[in-house]
Amino acid sequence: MIKGKEINTISEVLRYGMVGGGTGSFIGDVHRKAANFDGKIKLVAGSFSRNYDNTLSTGKKLGLETERLYKNFEEMAEKEAARKDKIDFVSIVTPNYAHYNIAKTFLENGINVVCDKPLCFKVEEAEELADLAKEKELLFCVTYVYTGYPMVKQAREMIRQGDIGEILMVMAEYPQEWLATTVENEGNNQAAWRTNPKMAGSSNCVGDIGSHVENTVSYITGLKIKSLCAKLDIIGENRILDTNAGIMIKYDNGASGFYWCSQIAIGHDNDLKIRIYATKGSIEWQQEDPNYLKVTYLGKPKEQLSRGRDEIYPLAANNVRIPGGHVEGYYEAFANIYKNFADALLSKKSDCNFKKENYDYPTVYDGINGVKFINSAVESSKNGSIWVDL
Amino acid sequence: MIKGKEINTISEVLRYGMVGGGTGSFIGDVHRKAANFDGKIKLVAGSFSRNYDNTLSTGKKLGLETERLYKNFEEMAEKEAARKDKIDFVSIVTPNYAHYNIAKTFLENGINVVCDKPLCFKVEEAEELADLAKEKELLFCVTYVYTGYPMVKQAREMIRQGDIGEILMVMAEYPQEWLATTVENEGNNQAAWRTNPKMAGSSNCVGDIGSHVENTVSYITGLKIKSLCAKLDIIGENRILDTNAGIMIKYDNGASGFYWCSQIAIGHDNDLKIRIYATKGSIEWQQEDPNYLKVTYLGKPKEQLSRGRDEIYPLAANNVRIPGGHVEGYYEAFANIYKNFADALLSKKSDCNFKKENYDYPTVYDGINGVKFINSAVESSKNGSIWVDL
Amino acid sequence: MIKGKEINTISEVLRYGMVGGGTGSFIGDVHRKAANFDGKIKLVAGSFSRNYDNTLSTGKKLGLETERLYKNFEEMAEKEAARKDKIDFVSIVTPNYAHYNIAKTFLENGINVVCDKPLCFKVEEAEELADLAKEKELLFCVTYVYTGYPMVKQAREMIRQGDIGEILMVMAEYPQEWLATTVENEGNNQAAWRTNPKMAGSSNCVGDIGSHVENTVSYITGLKIKSLCAKLDIIGENRILDTNAGIMIKYDNGASGFYWCSQIAIGHDNDLKIRIYATKGSIEWQQEDPNYLKVTYLGKPKEQLSRGRDEIYPLAANNVRIPGGHVEGYYEAFANIYKNFADALLSKKSDCNFKKENYDYPTVYDGINGVKFINSAVESSKNGSIWVDL
Amino acid sequence: MIKGKEINTISEVLRYGMVGGGTGSFIGDVHRKAANFDGKIKLVAGSFSRNYDNTLSTGKKLGLETERLYKNFEEMAEKEAARKDKIDFVSIVTPNYAHYNIAKTFLENGINVVCDKPLCFKVEEAEELADLAKEKELLFCVTYVYTGYPMVKQAREMIRQGDIGEILMVMAEYPQEWLATTVENEGNNQAAWRTNPKMAGSSNCVGDIGSHVENTVSYITGLKIKSLCAKLDIIGENRILDTNAGIMIKYDNGASGFYWCSQIAIGHDNDLKIRIYATKGSIEWQQEDPNYLKVTYLGKPKEQLSRGRDEIYPLAANNVRIPGGHVEGYYEAFANIYKNFADALLSKKSDCNFKKENYDYPTVYDGINGVKFINSAVESSKNGSIWVDL
Repeated sequence: MIKGKEINTISEVLRYGMVGGGTGSFIGDVHRKAANFDGKIKLVAGSFSRNYDNTLSTGKKLGLETERLYKNFEEMAEKEAARKDKIDFVSIVTPNYAHYNIAKTFLENGINVVCDKPLCFKVEEAEELADLAKEKELLFCVTYVYTGYPMVKQAREMIRQGDIGEILMVMAEYPQEWLATTVENEGNNQAAWRTNPKMAGSSNCVGDIGSHVENTVSYITGLKIKSLCAKLDIIGENRILDTNAGIMIKYDNGASGFYWCSQIAIGHDNDLKIRIYATKGSIEWQQEDPNYLKVTYLGKPKEQLSRGRDEIYPLAANNVRIPGGHVEGYYEAFANIYKNFADALLSKKSDCNFKKENYDYPTVYDGINGVKFINSAVESSKNGSIWVDL
Repeated sequence: MIKGKEINTISEVLRYGMVGGGTGSFIGDVHRKAANFDGKIKLVAGSFSRNYDNTLSTGKKLGLETERLYKNFEEMAEKEAARKDKIDFVSIVTPNYAHYNIAKTFLENGINVVCDKPLCFKVEEAEELADLAKEKELLFCVTYVYTGYPMVKQAREMIRQGDIGEILMVMAEYPQEWLATTVENEGNNQAAWRTNPKMAGSSNCVGDIGSHVENTVSYITGLKIKSLCAKLDIIGENRILDTNAGIMIKYDNGASGFYWCSQIAIGHDNDLKIRIYATKGSIEWQQEDPNYLKVTYLGKPKEQLSRGRDEIYPLAANNVRIPGGHVEGYYEAFANIYKNFADALLSKKSDCNFKKENYDYPTVYDGINGVKFINSAVESSKNGSIWVDL
Repeated sequence: MIKGKEINTISEVLRYGMVGGGTGSFIGDVHRKAANFDGKIKLVAGSFSRNYDNTLSTGKKLGLETERLYKNFEEMAEKEAARKDKIDFVSIVTPNYAHYNIAKTFLENGINVVCDKPLCFKVEEAEELADLAKEKELLFCVTYVYTGYPMVKQAREMIRQGDIGEILMVMAEYPQEWLATTVENEGNNQAAWRTNPKMAGSSNCVGDIGSHVENTVSYITGLKIKSLCAKLDIIGENRILDTNAGIMIKYDNGASGFYWCSQIAIGHDNDLKIRIYATKGSIEWQQEDPNYLKVTYLGKPKEQLSRGRDEIYPLAANNVRIPGGHVEGYYEAFANIYKNFADALLSKKSDCNFKKENYDYPTVYDGINGVKFINSAVESSKNGSIWVDL
Repeated sequence: MIKGKEINTISEVLRYGMVGGGTGSFIGDVHRKAANFDGKIKLVAGSFSRNYDNTLSTGKKLGLETERLYKNFEEMAEKEAARKDKIDFVSIVTPNYAHYNIAKTFLENGINVVCDKPLCFKVEEAEELADLAKEKELLFCVTYVYTGYPMVKQAREMIRQGDIGEILMVMAEYPQEWLATTVENEGNNQAAWRTNPKMAGSSNCVGDIGSHVENTVSYITGLKIKSLCAKLDIIGENRILDTNAGIMIKYDNGASGFYWCSQIAIGHDNDLKIRIYATKGSIEWQQEDPNYLKVTYLGKPKEQLSRGRDEIYPLAANNVRIPGGHVEGYYEAFANIYKNFADALLSKKSDCNFKKENYDYPTVYDGINGVKFINSAVESSKNGSIWVDL
């Protein structure tokens, strides 16, 4: 037996295209499954690889029409923009260094953008993309997946409602173990480009997972980082980029924080964990057990708040599909990002009173903050782990 | 960053129809999302409700052609059987009492069947369906969802490989809390039919969740139940059917077992937990934390085996989509049931050497065992909790 | 820093003697440390072994006077009874088969008794001891250690106060792994006598740890067992006595229960766990994490109640020595048994209004219930696991 | 049944006196129970309070002779030193500010010292005490209790043996919640002196619990702190001293660390947790669940190492009293500090080859490191959270 509400599927669908995500890519398939999850969004076009054969075979497997399989993203942006049944948005799932150019091209062609994170390498580029989207009145989503979890949304809303008072201390971490050995020398392609500054930019570990910490904390707490003091450690023979980092934070409200991210922490896979301590209570969320919040109110026993079992705010409840005790995971969180972006896009198409502030997905401005954070951490560490203002 | 292998989507798709699952149904949407998950299976026909308006509106929302929206299942079976592009299988997601007739009708029309559990009320009916499927050379899947979890499959394979020796004791339980109060009197439709013998049959709690315990243990261990001694408790004012049950088990290999299922156990949602004790080790799996197995080998520290992190058998690994530390849950398990059934069906269509034994999905024979188990438990309890042979 | 209340030590001490517990014994030392814990009780006499040399050397190590080291328990009972400064009580820590005679002898000599569990082998003998204690107006404690834990006391009091309503279902278990192999053949003395019916009586596993389950559940819930259906499994080559057992229970209030005890459950050490499901909530306590109760009230989030942190009833709080977050364990629970018995004894010596009902320690009547439970379980299993009334 | 080895009690006892620990004190009783635990150490003298009546009544309760109850510590040191049966050591359990003078006085009188932590306020004073002890050939123990836990000792030995390779990263924390409100204004005496710089020195939170983090990490890892960058937060109205602190660490081997201590972290009691990441594995220990180590070796499943169940090094095993599955806690850890100090003292008295390096208790040199750490953290924070060398 399953208790629960119905999640309607709908006939009105959005059409999208994808850049990147051909054979050999992992994250492309995740994006496609996530977009497909609720039956609202249909893949109709793609330039899945710089290798056109890959694009053709991938597109064929996915059942796309050959005429909408493009040799490169420029051609795709141009030709799709010219179609009557053009794509509603493009999804960019290439390695990071390529994001900026692709996003810019599609914006210039009047097409909404979903882009994997981190958005790009330079703050100016990030701001340019934001300005362009604003000018063209286009929506721009950066897929910080962890904000898609219902209990992350619950934490955000509890804090916005003042349930635990004013924030005093944030402890957040994202340890992994996958770079504990130099697998980049043993044929691991992900490891190869992540540890290569040409592909990954000025930071590997902070850029990849530190930025998830920054974004998820920011989403939950609403706090702005005033300054930070970072120590980036390059662990692993012959490596150039960081694989471990500790970052002390001063927030604008006077609270303190500490972020730890690591790719050499044996025993951890994707162990993002966020703890918020405030004047009236505390909240803890852990990505590997995402359906729960540990909550303690001052003077009360520790509680476990369960998605789908206990009463939660609408912001969270609207992103739940099944009752408590049946686990929702990574795909469902990712699907929520697409679902909320799609809701915004559908509303924008049909509602003259559309306001994007009413929709709950990570935007290009989150992308800008991410780039600022990464670059400041690198700057602090290079200068002897001094305090750097953001 | 995500480590992992690619899960290919494919262009060759199976077409299916659905009986049940109209507006107001929960499980229908779960089946549709699960079938849709990997892009192999497409919904093309339906008789979603005994109310044709519901069928029409549901079908429209789902983007189906009107001509394939049927007034009742008999019409659907007949007309689909006559089409050149007929459905490859039907998915039956109605309340339990209707399963038998619908399944029989589609089998008679030469259409493969996926049916929700429990299969039906009487052992003879269950056996009749099995015989019919065999005679018609049709595939028949009963959606015992928990066997779709990779770590359940890992447990099965560890035991088949002798990793923990010979089984001595099984402790299994499935406590829930949702019927701790008489919500059937407060507008909860699920509760209303689950507690109504006309709709649910001779047992509520054992029929609904006890049968999941029986099936999941059976799948993992391969043990046959020789006899059982059951005490079914009717807890809740004016109720007629059981809401709590304890069942002692003797298995054919001499091992002992105990199954507990409850719908009045405050503090539990869908807390299926299975523990296997054997001569060389033990295994524990818990549905609410499904990505791990707790394993202890004789004389060794306790271990946690992680889906996607640690080395697991191909039977399990083939049902994993993402790396360790990113949670796969209920939808992904359900999708695995459909995926494996679809693999069998595609192979059957194309491969003259097809053997259904090579495919890993719950079949009509699992359905028969489920009905036997439920009925024996009811019989034992009615006769003063005596031992009953199966 | 440690928050907390002071536990006074006192100058007024009780004097006790010990039978058993010489060199080579384990539990004797535990009793001595427990008795000694709060500074109220002083060891002054002993007959630590049937081997007098052992008694002498043990007594010397413990700093006792030679004249109070006795060749056997009969001599000790007689001579101590004749002393002006005689012992206030005797502590019996021999193997089980000897308990009855020793206890009887001391009672007959007017000396209060503390006895390890199980009390003895036959119900009639247990009742005889109870009658003798009553007749002589002596106190008799049976050291069911787990009732000494503060959070076990908290569970008892919550149920007595009606906090979770009327009890519906009890799930209790005590799995161990130490007899997973036949260590009795490899020089393990404990294993040798535990698996020997001459030393251990008619049951090994139920007698040793099943009786702890029975007693702890009884203490917490106050329920009486009406009837039981037991399956005792003899696992391990050439063994005669049970090493695994499942026992279904019917309580006098109509509730159901299941007890599992095992010595072959790889992965468990002393994993006593008790779960109580009632009409308004549920309680869970686990011996290996004894400082907490998991509590869920109907319609509320799950809570963790912490000894020394959260508000608890006086019955529990009076047995706490240090603040929450600093662990109290097995010795402290054992010390509470002695402390509460000592409180009763001191009161009896000084207070004409003394009522033993006001003191919270396990008595000879708990001992009787234990013997009944063990014997009924053996009887049920021998007769094909039929239901047996208690 | 309890598996296990015998812990001998012995007749040869050490005699000690106590300064502080009168009525109203908490920690004094803990020290007395810990010293008393194994029957090796006997309290014979005391100056329990600056109030002589308190000393007299406390001493009487404890059964001491009146002639060994002293008006002040100076009198006690002098008179005890003159006795033939003088105390073997003094135990100093006063508030921190008094430690230095008392310790110095007893050392000057030729009496060994056990002193609560932190040792004193100034590095020079700490070094003076160390020099004095060395000159007088006296033993000096500082009771950093957490190093008394067997699994902390196991972690230390695993690292010394190279089991997890070279240390890369340390994450350690000690959150509490007891100062989340200003209880110092509500009659909490502990809070009053902890938050008062005259009594507590230049730091409250780092001085009290940060120093435990420093010491326990140092004991486990053997790493020396090269420099640190600290941010001390004064949270709570009208407070003068820190109640929350984050400290980034650079160790001499090039590893990084982060220590967090807090007294305002709602939901935590004494939640000391230490995680060590190294090249071949990782170790995690948590004070509130102290009988286990979580260990992960590169490429292997996560393991749980259990005190008393799994094979552990002699350094740890020698501090275990009971088998796995029966919890040892705070008192037993504290008793281990006293037991190991007593072993050293007994050996020193009797063995001409005595070397104090062979004994495993925290010494005055640990005390010096603690004072250095506290003072450096305060200095860093006062200067804008700059890096400070130790």
